[in-house]
Amino acid sequence: MSAPRPLVDIVGAGHVLDGAALRERPQDFWNPVATRARAVVSPASVPELSAVLAWCNDNGCPVIPEGGRTNLNQGTAASPEAIILSTMRLDRIGTPDPQAMTVEAGAGAVIQTLQERCEAQGLRFGLDFGARGSAMLGGALSTNAGGFQALRYGVARDQVLGLEAVLADGTVLSHLTAYAKDNTGYDLKQLFIGSEGTLGVITRAVLRLHPGPVTRSTALLGFRDFEAVTRTLATMRRNLQGTLSSYEIMWEEFYEFNLAALSEGRRPMQDRFPFCVLCEAEGFAPESDDERFQNAVMQAIDSGDAGDAVIAQSLRQRDELWRIREDFDAEQRLFTVMIDFDISLRLRDMAAFVAEAERSLAREIPEFLGLHVLGHLGDGNLHVTTGLPTPERKDEVKALIYALIARYGGSISAEHGIGINKRDYLHHSRSAAEIATMRRLKMALDPRNILNPGKVLP
Amino acid sequence: MSAPRPLVDIVGAGHVLDGAALRERPQDFWNPVATRARAVVSPASVPELSAVLAWCNDNGCPVIPEGGRTNLNQGTAASPEAIILSTMRLDRIGTPDPQAMTVEAGAGAVIQTLQERCEAQGLRFGLDFGARGSAMLGGALSTNAGGFQALRYGVARDQVLGLEAVLADGTVLSHLTAYAKDNTGYDLKQLFIGSEGTLGVITRAVLRLHPGPVTRSTALLGFRDFEAVTRTLATMRRNLQGTLSSYEIMWEEFYEFNLAALSEGRRPMQDRFPFCVLCEAEGFAPESDDERFQNAVMQAIDSGDAGDAVIAQSLRQRDELWRIREDFDAEQRLFTVMIDFDISLRLRDMAAFVAEAERSLAREIPEFLGLHVLGHLGDGNLHVTTGLPTPERKDEVKALIYALIARYGGSISAEHGIGINKRDYLHHSRSAAEIATMRRLKMALDPRNILNPGKVLP
Ligand SMILES: Cc1cc2nc3c(=O)[nH]c(=O)nc-3n(C[C@H](O)[C@H](O)[C@H](O)COP(=O)(O)OP(=O)(O)OC[C@H]3O[C@@H](n4cnc5c(N)ncnc54)[C@H](O)[C@@H]3O)c2cc1C
Ligand SMILES: Cc1cc2nc3c(=O)[nH]c(=O)nc-3n(C[C@H](O)[C@H](O)[C@H](O)COP(=O)(O)OP(=O)(O)OC[C@H]3O[C@@H](n4cnc5c(N)ncnc54)[C@H](O)[C@@H]3O)c2cc1C
Repeated sequence: MSAPRPLVDIVGAGHVLDGAALRERPQDFWNPVATRARAVVSPASVPELSAVLAWCNDNGCPVIPEGGRTNLNQGTAASPEAIILSTMRLDRIGTPDPQAMTVEAGAGAVIQTLQERCEAQGLRFGLDFGARGSAMLGGALSTNAGGFQALRYGVARDQVLGLEAVLADGTVLSHLTAYAKDNTGYDLKQLFIGSEGTLGVITRAVLRLHPGPVTRSTALLGFRDFEAVTRTLATMRRNLQGTLSSYEIMWEEFYEFNLAALSEGRRPMQDRFPFCVLCEAEGFAPESDDERFQNAVMQAIDSGDAGDAVIAQSLRQRDELWRIREDFDAEQRLFTVMIDFDISLRLRDMAAFVAEAERSLAREIPEFLGLHVLGHLGDGNLHVTTGLPTPERKDEVKALIYALIARYGGSISAEHGIGINKRDYLHHSRSAAEIATMRRLKMALDPRNILNPGKVLP
Repeated sequence: MSAPRPLVDIVGAGHVLDGAALRERPQDFWNPVATRARAVVSPASVPELSAVLAWCNDNGCPVIPEGGRTNLNQGTAASPEAIILSTMRLDRIGTPDPQAMTVEAGAGAVIQTLQERCEAQGLRFGLDFGARGSAMLGGALSTNAGGFQALRYGVARDQVLGLEAVLADGTVLSHLTAYAKDNTGYDLKQLFIGSEGTLGVITRAVLRLHPGPVTRSTALLGFRDFEAVTRTLATMRRNLQGTLSSYEIMWEEFYEFNLAALSEGRRPMQDRFPFCVLCEAEGFAPESDDERFQNAVMQAIDSGDAGDAVIAQSLRQRDELWRIREDFDAEQRLFTVMIDFDISLRLRDMAAFVAEAERSLAREIPEFLGLHVLGHLGDGNLHVTTGLPTPERKDEVKALIYALIARYGGSISAEHGIGINKRDYLHHSRSAAEIATMRRLKMALDPRNILNPGKVLP
């Protein structure tokens, strides 16, 4: 099918993709299958985008907002009659303002470009995650992305001061203010952040920035029990004042597996530990930060909480340590059919949850290929990955783990959102009354249900 | 009038105030006039509160949610046929959890009690403001209060991890999770925070806590120009790492006036300065925090940015400095008819805005009694107070200042919210499309318009 004529007129033929061209375009980062949709339409401005939406609303045409297509939940999957509305041309990034510590950027700004612009002014944009080279601001805000620095700077929502979004009917809601405090009626921006394109299309934002740190210290610590891991987190928070930026936990099975795959027998620490933690601080005082970090690590060892520790002595050593945490190539080879969970749990439940998940899987689904657990411990967020040799029992694994998460009162999606993939599990984390209220909001803002239909809400 | 029988049956006669008793009860902190309302009803539990709302919704009876009645915008004013729904009995505070760094508390918990409970566990609740002894958690969240520590810990919204609220029809929305990351559908709690009781009644919250600092350093600095004030803020942010907690500016007219009223001729700094700043840091390292703070203050002087500075050498000296910032008794005597504004502005506009406000008032309303300006500079938030000898031209002053705020793209309410007092000025900060969208949300969640009718929305 080809793009509707009125939409071509709005954005110009050069900014419409349809027909054969669509069959060469992968659906998203994870799905090499061809994009389904009537067309991909890329407006150059907010008025153009508003006009596209108004036409689609009037004509009952489904609209799939799209950024960098790196989402992990089929959030940008389209039906054949839908229009994909790409925000990629709304990519202007204003000059970061060192006095106000803010920057204005369009939804199509690539996260990494945004980071680099801010760095050039000695400022830090508080959001960072693996997909930084492709993910765009609008996508990151719509999924309320988390990532590596959330412990220090918060999630995507926490970076936003002002926001502009367009409703399904084309109404432009613009509140591009740069104020930390602004109690003028309802805080509408909150509706669009994290709602995965189902309530409106984000077009621009004013972002909060932070002073850019000038020092970095990294250590890997080994722990014999989980209590000691959380105790050390609390002590580090104090001892490193505001400079602790990452506290990433790896369960033994994942750590040892990845270490073996990556480091050709070299071990940063001799012993095996049930838990390893990658801990990083970034500060502003070159003359004292390293020493303070060393003292904090020493204290973890002297107190008996950490069994061993290694402090990175060079950037290369630092990168080697982070690779154990970040490289998933070997894991992808191990877990033929990979099934992963992105969950929040209370710290005090984590160890028990993992042990119980392992036991249950071993009992119910003996062919499972082991459980890899790691996560942003400082945020209460674990990534749990498992695999099967063949896909048949995949849904059983999911049902088992989601039910367990619900039993622990956990969140079935800490970072990655719901999309299509977790839609039918949403009730494990939200009550019927909450889901009904979400529907009321959807009805109020998108009464014809054109925005990302079938996503998020079951 | 007396309370409706069904409501008395729900909460018990001992928890209903009506008739003569109401005439002895001041409307709020600022209005000694008697409370107008059919009755004040105080449920003991969420099911009771839900039943009260359901009855009111079925019977089209207006409901005014109420906490500590310290709001500054007539937010709890009631019409004679309304029911005031007090949350004061929902005052349970759970044990603060030092591992998770969270606490669960009821809407009726008094802010100061909550602060003290957390302090007893070495933890800090990030919200503090002058009304702490009376204001309650539900009220503070419903107004999204700011206050003295927002520079470091953010506003009320930033303290909330989980929330429970009840809709107009009695539907209980409970999401009392304690997770920093939770992307499971729409973030409903955001709707109730800052909406001043017009979308639902907050009953409980899970709050984020911070490590409790153990050191405190305070200084007063004098500046000759505004640029130097903001430059020093940026430097302090870096030099004091994460420990800067307050950066409070006072314009000369206010500072000198209050100093003369309070300190019997003693001057912390000899010279007069156009701008004084009260700067405070709280940290975790007794052996080094004081020195670091002194160095930061020294640097401000050595760089030529600060003209003079004094560091508090004792708790008593610290309190004396803060009194100049916090004591408004003399000001209240000076400004017979007091008119105050609570605004956000871009840092770069502040000096020009204040100069222009002063010039315009002097030109248009010669009898005005001067302009006192102070504020939480680190948050971009100024409190601007003026006065008139008689009330006749009060509305003219308001119209003039609000129009000026709009011209600078400022926020007409940084902290205190809209209520009744600023409702008719809301369009100075929010567009017609935004206000229409707020109405859509109000209609979706409170279709019979029983919750705090006439507040916030014009
Ligand atoms: C290698 C890798 C690592 C990752 N690591 C992390 C991580 O550590 N933490 C984390 O939180 N996430 C992570 N992610 C997922 C992350 O959430 C997304 O990559 C990113 O936030 C989405 O941005 P995007 O521009 O690619 O959005 P898309 O994938 O294009 O879209 C995401 C969703 O938002 C909607 N949308 C897109 N743009 C808009 C808009 N302008 N207005 C309204 N709706 C819109 C879409 O319809 C879709 O539902 C990772 C992904 C990859 C591939
Ligand atoms: C001396 C003084 C100093 C102050 N300083 C500051 C300051 O520095 N920063 C700042 O931001 N504010 C300040 N304030 C105002 C502050 O916002 C309020 O005092 C406080 O947040 C309101 O709490 P409360 O319990 O008194 O609420 P109330 O006054 O009882 O109610 C406030 C509003 O919220 C609604 N409401 C109350 N409880 C609920 C509930 N459970 N659910 C839904 N709606 C509810 C009410 O209908 C009303 O609209 C100050 C006030 C005073 C008197």
